[in-house]
Amino acid sequence: MFDAFATILDWLGIAVFATTGALVASRKQMDIFGFVLLGTVTGIGGGTIRDTLLGILPVFWVTNPAYLVVCVVVSSTTFFFAHVPQSRYRLLLWFDAIGLAVFAVTGAETALATGVDPIVAVGMGVVTATFGGILRDLLGGESPVVLRREIYVTAALAGAALFVGMSTAGTPREIALTSGVVS
Amino acid sequence: MFDAFATILDWLGIAVFATTGALVASRKQMDIFGFVLLGTVTGIGGGTIRDTLLGILPVFWVTNPAYLVVCVVVSSTTFFFAHVPQSRYRLLLWFDAIGLAVFAVTGAETALATGVDPIVAVGMGVVTATFGGILRDLLGGESPVVLRREIYVTAALAGAALFVGMSTAGTPREIALTSGVVS
Amino acid sequence: MFDAFATILDWLGIAVFATTGALVASRKQMDIFGFVLLGTVTGIGGGTIRDTLLGILPVFWVTNPAYLVVCVVVSSTTFFFAHVPQSRYRLLLWFDAIGLAVFAVTGAETALATGVDPIVAVGMGVVTATFGGILRDLLGGESPVVLRREIYVTAALAGAALFVGMSTAGTPREIALTSGVVS
Repeated sequence: MFDAFATILDWLGIAVFATTGALVASRKQMDIFGFVLLGTVTGIGGGTIRDTLLGILPVFWVTNPAYLVVCVVVSSTTFFFAHVPQSRYRLLLWFDAIGLAVFAVTGAETALATGVDPIVAVGMGVVTATFGGILRDLLGGESPVVLRREIYVTAALAGAALFVGMSTAGTPREIALTSGVVS
Repeated sequence: MFDAFATILDWLGIAVFATTGALVASRKQMDIFGFVLLGTVTGIGGGTIRDTLLGILPVFWVTNPAYLVVCVVVSSTTFFFAHVPQSRYRLLLWFDAIGLAVFAVTGAETALATGVDPIVAVGMGVVTATFGGILRDLLGGESPVVLRREIYVTAALAGAALFVGMSTAGTPREIALTSGVVS
Repeated sequence: MFDAFATILDWLGIAVFATTGALVASRKQMDIFGFVLLGTVTGIGGGTIRDTLLGILPVFWVTNPAYLVVCVVVSSTTFFFAHVPQSRYRLLLWFDAIGLAVFAVTGAETALATGVDPIVAVGMGVVTATFGGILRDLLGGESPVVLRREIYVTAALAGAALFVGMSTAGTPREIALTSGVVS
């Protein structure tokens, strides 16, 4: 049951980030392939860097191509609905925050599962949560939003730290995961 | 005979991309070492990211330093001939397109050889073909050309997809490779 | 005794580069978490890319989290002292040069220890010395200083080449290391 919950969160985070990548492509008036490339890099970029640093190779989406397919589907769907009313921009900011919270925790959990030091696990949570967006902004030719609005890194750090702290203290995973995401 | 053909294509792609990297260095009026750094990153960058994601480590040019040597030689040669007549710029665009077509197919082939899903193989073809140029543009301080001129991603995707489709359908490799590059 | 010396150099290089990353964060008026992210990426970025390319995974700071802690401590300390008098900027340029010289040599040494070709070892020295700063400048939204002031790449190349040349020629490591750093 826990795994099902964690998996749903994981897919949610990827879909949400892929959407933000596609929206940057929209702002830059790219073609559909620009949407797909930027959406995919944003959706799976953070987890890809995390897996590489931890030595979990090939990375997760090579082993399970469904992640790749979701990014492509979400990005191209966004392409056809990108003339989105301004009111949805607010919704997107919320989704972005959700993705960040989710990835901070699932990233830290993936790292903990490989037996690394808790400090490293917190760092991996931050990497997973922030580097997809950093790659998106670099490719889109903008200075990274994560470094302009520091609340993002702070939130990622807090979520990952809380989850790792509770996990190493023996808290049941369900509670620790929920706490980390909500924080 | 096939391997010899694929190898020649591979070297051609690397030399062509290294030249485009060196030409960006030229536009930015860098020193010879800037030429070499930018040319080398462009020539072997895409394949390096592909190998890392697939877990083929150390990456290809660590195992076979000749690739590194070719990039250095091509980049420094470009340094001494960079006051190139404008007429050759047209030739370069052609070479760039050739490099992209070649890398899309050889990248997909490398991925298929590790036994990954065909969808992932197509993705790796795109990564190999586009990320050398993306790194070049990021380091050169320009917004990535691949995201401004979407025809590039489209072409890489088409070449890689055709090659992977024909390969998995049992087409002899020689024909599949040629079709992928020509497309 | 040699190892102790090499280790001290290594820590020195990381602390110095982390400081330069934090100072870029200061110029961009970031929050403390921006300082930590940028300082950490600059301090361990070059070595992380080197380890990945060589297949030494998980990367060094996952195995030894003390490197991560040093970067965080140095970056946050810089945050509280960043209203630094202009006179210290000169000192920083010196520190930057020291970090570059140190990383060129320790990077080449790490590569040599894995048994790669001397040419690749020189390349890895350059990667270790320059890519931390390149990542710093990309994340900070500036065009990479290493590509504007070519003296940096030249110095890194000279130091790494001298060290590798002397090492493969059988010179005692202490002397080769010192020569490479001083050059």
